[in-house]
Amino acid sequence: MEDKRVKTVKIGLLGLGTVGGGVYKLIERQKKEMVNKTGANVEIVKILVHNMNKKREGVDPSLLTDKWEDIITNDEIDIIVEVMGGIEPAKTMIKEALKAGKSVVTANKDLLAEYGEELLELAKKNHVDLMFEASVAGGIPIMRPLRKCLLGNEITQVMGIVNGTTNYILTKMFEKNMSFEEALAKATELGYAEADPTADIEGLDAGRKVAIMASSAFRSKVVFDDVYIEGITKITSSDIQYAKSFDSVIKLIGVAKNTESGIEVCVYPMFVSLDHPLASVRNSFNAVMVHGDAVDDVMFYGRGAGEFPTASAVVGDILDVARNVVWGSTGRAVNTCYRDTPVKQFEDIENKFVIRMQVDNKPGVLAAISSVFGDHKVSIRKVLQNIISDEIAEIVIGTDEVKEKYMKNALDLIVNLSVVKEISSVIREY
Amino acid sequence: MEDKRVKTVKIGLLGLGTVGGGVYKLIERQKKEMVNKTGANVEIVKILVHNMNKKREGVDPSLLTDKWEDIITNDEIDIIVEVMGGIEPAKTMIKEALKAGKSVVTANKDLLAEYGEELLELAKKNHVDLMFEASVAGGIPIMRPLRKCLLGNEITQVMGIVNGTTNYILTKMFEKNMSFEEALAKATELGYAEADPTADIEGLDAGRKVAIMASSAFRSKVVFDDVYIEGITKITSSDIQYAKSFDSVIKLIGVAKNTESGIEVCVYPMFVSLDHPLASVRNSFNAVMVHGDAVDDVMFYGRGAGEFPTASAVVGDILDVARNVVWGSTGRAVNTCYRDTPVKQFEDIENKFVIRMQVDNKPGVLAAISSVFGDHKVSIRKVLQNIISDEIAEIVIGTDEVKEKYMKNALDLIVNLSVVKEISSVIREY
Repeated sequence: MEDKRVKTVKIGLLGLGTVGGGVYKLIERQKKEMVNKTGANVEIVKILVHNMNKKREGVDPSLLTDKWEDIITNDEIDIIVEVMGGIEPAKTMIKEALKAGKSVVTANKDLLAEYGEELLELAKKNHVDLMFEASVAGGIPIMRPLRKCLLGNEITQVMGIVNGTTNYILTKMFEKNMSFEEALAKATELGYAEADPTADIEGLDAGRKVAIMASSAFRSKVVFDDVYIEGITKITSSDIQYAKSFDSVIKLIGVAKNTESGIEVCVYPMFVSLDHPLASVRNSFNAVMVHGDAVDDVMFYGRGAGEFPTASAVVGDILDVARNVVWGSTGRAVNTCYRDTPVKQFEDIENKFVIRMQVDNKPGVLAAISSVFGDHKVSIRKVLQNIISDEIAEIVIGTDEVKEKYMKNALDLIVNLSVVKEISSVIREY
Repeated sequence: MEDKRVKTVKIGLLGLGTVGGGVYKLIERQKKEMVNKTGANVEIVKILVHNMNKKREGVDPSLLTDKWEDIITNDEIDIIVEVMGGIEPAKTMIKEALKAGKSVVTANKDLLAEYGEELLELAKKNHVDLMFEASVAGGIPIMRPLRKCLLGNEITQVMGIVNGTTNYILTKMFEKNMSFEEALAKATELGYAEADPTADIEGLDAGRKVAIMASSAFRSKVVFDDVYIEGITKITSSDIQYAKSFDSVIKLIGVAKNTESGIEVCVYPMFVSLDHPLASVRNSFNAVMVHGDAVDDVMFYGRGAGEFPTASAVVGDILDVARNVVWGSTGRAVNTCYRDTPVKQFEDIENKFVIRMQVDNKPGVLAAISSVFGDHKVSIRKVLQNIISDEIAEIVIGTDEVKEKYMKNALDLIVNLSVVKEISSVIREY
């Protein structure tokens, strides 16, 4: 009997935008293979859309509905696939679906980053699956590796490039000497950046992914609000040039560390040395590096967004859940966030810094600055100085690791030194 | 009840060498976490060893046995973990274990590359799991991503660096200008190469991994004997220098392609352009790049060998199976090799080539060589020429893609041209 119990697993799709459309097409494309791959025929039987009148190429109009209750209360449907994004109404719909005993596959990072634990607990309580591979880094397998393959590890760090838009912008600034504005315009033109690029360029999108990865890797609840976030809008061509002279590149890095004094979760632009594997992650590609006590460093690289890469992750989850539906083995989740590790205060996190400032072009200036740094436990590792004019010099100082609060205190004093005209940039170094 | 059904899942470990020792230690280390992670207490209750008298630091001697039947016929044991390597007696033991209704986790690439399908069918028939993440690329999650996360894709290519020893050697030849012999000696000294390095340097180890990955990715049976294999023993410092002048690096690449005319499976040294992600995989690190129709390119990078990285993969599998044991959901495998795609004849595979030869230093030589190439559908893309002496010149020719058989025919004629002293190397280009 074992390979004969082919069942048709029925899907309700919430949303038919870019990702939803990709999921629809990919399931059509895989129709013939599915039974062999999973023991199930997977079929989309209902699709929730906003506008019933919009023409949708290649989609059977009889599947469309604008009433979500039709889907959630439909007893035929085994799996709800939520690809609308945003907190509400997705949250309500997913909760209702879970309560109705349906498994859920979602690509919704906004929701997972805030209510992930609550939803996972609800899935567990109702003996159904909740999968969200697509919520982080698009098509790159990262959640299942973190939650399964690396389960024998104590994971101490997850970090990487998890936003393709900003990586594209920074790559163009580095390789083509574009300004931030030029690179953003190019990203918008190519569809990498949305009309309102705030969530990308301010680091919010990356921050959500960091929260989701940290929770899964460290088995302790981390939410979006816990993540300290700086975007890339202040990065200038000068910063990029200095990165080059330091044999580095600037990347927007999401970092989650599980330290003895708590979890650190941050997103900010960082100098990354050219010989680090993340330095060669170019354009809109993403990459996540995981450090475990047994496996050492592993890296996952690929396309972090886009119709088909994201649909690849969603459909991978659908087929996994479908297999569980066929075999009656949904809901085997165990305690996801069974630990209660505190999230560290940002001011207590240690970082290396590169600080660029405009100062008076006269003797004694570096001594004055160094003295303030010295008083605040900041140890200077390297200094570059460029004469800008007879009056003005530009100094770039690289520091050793120091707590954020000491650096902040030092900079608050330095900016008020009479010899300092301006602190032009403060960028961390990986 | 859902999180209360904690069960002790009992393991019989076959082998206590490097990987077996790592598995033992890692399971000890994870003892407290396991229940939360999987809902099960995992406990090693028997260990098969050759020599009962050998001292084994930190291992309870009462667990040891030198009779494998004690383990396979032990009704208490749920999961057999095979980390001995080699075809026999591992094959017999695994088959007996599967028939006895025990799930199996193995790191055995030799076995999987020849008898993978047979063993998977046997597992399916007996409603148990057979997992083998550790058989390819050590700690790097690659089998589960291929078999689960990327299931929505038609995978057309899997390629990469899957042998750490040869990658270490090639890295030292490239970066430190070592000869092959010097680099091999260094690898042996550091424990990266075994006393008999044949399986590594001749590409056999990589070939086994390519067969396993191809079967899983393309869902069609591919065995070790199907793989065309060349090792790195003929690579010289001159080849490395020419690679540099072509902005490339030489890597031992395993390639599996699913083309319309059949499956291609090969292992050979290749020129890889410096801007390809695999070029920056240094020392003993491994990396596998997968191309799927939806996901595009994804890459998995990390440590392909070693006690703890390999144990990480084995324990990941153990915990996955343990969860299935607790929930009664083992044996959900479906048709693994449900397709029957032919493996292409090697002579019909197309490659780009870089050919280095010593020729008479006189006019007309390149014309003579080009003419033979032209007659055999070989189109020349670039030529480098170095004068070695008054009499001898070295020519390096880069070609476009051409079938292996045409290239072979051309070279058979070229080597017999009176103006050609020697064909020094024939290396493919990715």
